[in-house]
Amino acid sequence: MIVLHDFHRSSASFRIRIALKLKGIDYRAVVHDLDAGAHRSPQYLEINRQGLLPALEIGEQVLTQSAAILEHLDATYPDPPLLPNTTRGRARVRALFQMIASDTHPLTGMRVARYLKGSLGCDDATVGRWKRHWITETFTVLETMLAADPATGQFCHGDRPSLADIALVPQVVSARAAGVALEPFPSISRIFERCMHIEAFRSAHPDSCAIPTHA
Amino acid sequence: MIVLHDFHRSSASFRIRIALKLKGIDYRAVVHDLDAGAHRSPQYLEINRQGLLPALEIGEQVLTQSAAILEHLDATYPDPPLLPNTTRGRARVRALFQMIASDTHPLTGMRVARYLKGSLGCDDATVGRWKRHWITETFTVLETMLAADPATGQFCHGDRPSLADIALVPQVVSARAAGVALEPFPSISRIFERCMHIEAFRSAHPDSCAIPTHA
Repeated sequence: MIVLHDFHRSSASFRIRIALKLKGIDYRAVVHDLDAGAHRSPQYLEINRQGLLPALEIGEQVLTQSAAILEHLDATYPDPPLLPNTTRGRARVRALFQMIASDTHPLTGMRVARYLKGSLGCDDATVGRWKRHWITETFTVLETMLAADPATGQFCHGDRPSLADIALVPQVVSARAAGVALEPFPSISRIFERCMHIEAFRSAHPDSCAIPTHA
Repeated sequence: MIVLHDFHRSSASFRIRIALKLKGIDYRAVVHDLDAGAHRSPQYLEINRQGLLPALEIGEQVLTQSAAILEHLDATYPDPPLLPNTTRGRARVRALFQMIASDTHPLTGMRVARYLKGSLGCDDATVGRWKRHWITETFTVLETMLAADPATGQFCHGDRPSLADIALVPQVVSARAAGVALEPFPSISRIFERCMHIEAFRSAHPDSCAIPTHA
């Protein structure tokens, strides 16, 4: 049995939900309410010492870090593939993924917002500007990269979803929540809408899985 | 010819220097002085629209994002490997890599320090505390993970250097620069010292390549 430690508003968990659904992998979700600090419970820290979501249990193995989990899923459940079949394509898709997973998402998550408010005394408006700054910085570059590159297709890379779309879609959902206007980013918006026509993306969306299913 | 767009104090560039040297790949470094904003020059933005270091040119292909570059180098120059030969091992090494590359380094780099000072009006002491907070948070968990797991050897994973060490060593150098005391982290310190006995790590260290070699 595969168990996903999950929370509907966790962007990194959202990525794993998409991949599991795209690949048709059966799993059970154990929901940890981030707002209530459930990811810091002693029980969860025994599963993932970092106290971050997601974690994926496959038998006795516990996988953490969404990039590592996605690579693992793609290697062990290769159909459909989430990476292109050329080294050049894989490098492009992994770079697009990391632009979001490393350069953007870590700056805009809850743990950083908590520090900005608690330790730096920032108000909600300042935290909102902070989030919009980093998302806009990345989206501005990403938009020109996607628009300029013939490797972009219906999706970030060609005409099938890849790791790049799996990172992009949750970041677009976060961007909207943070009040980032998407009009300046037509390629990003177009790819987001294209993904939302796929059941795996739609059913992984936070709005589709907000009802806790505690174990 | 392989060209690395580099700066001695860029942690992500440091990772690529280590990998190139471990694999014995000849390359030419083009140094961009981050302090002087050279990574924002129109010439460099034509190579990497994101204006971040590193970028690696292999013939006509431009690779960006250190995680994507490292995966590419490991696939195309497989000897010595930077990932274990089991799926379980690869998942562990990639997770350790991302704990640093996603959860830590993006919060402690120059672009964030610039925003904290410029837009939030933080002083140097506050920026220093910010950096130490995120590094200490990760190192505290990483230390217990490394100490508790029998998969840890002379290096983060077994007895040969992997992507995990390639992320860890630059982060330890940054931690020292930020004033993080390393005594509470004996496993991290031990692995760092072990790496420093390897010429590839030593010669990639910022102190070994601080002399600009402008193209």
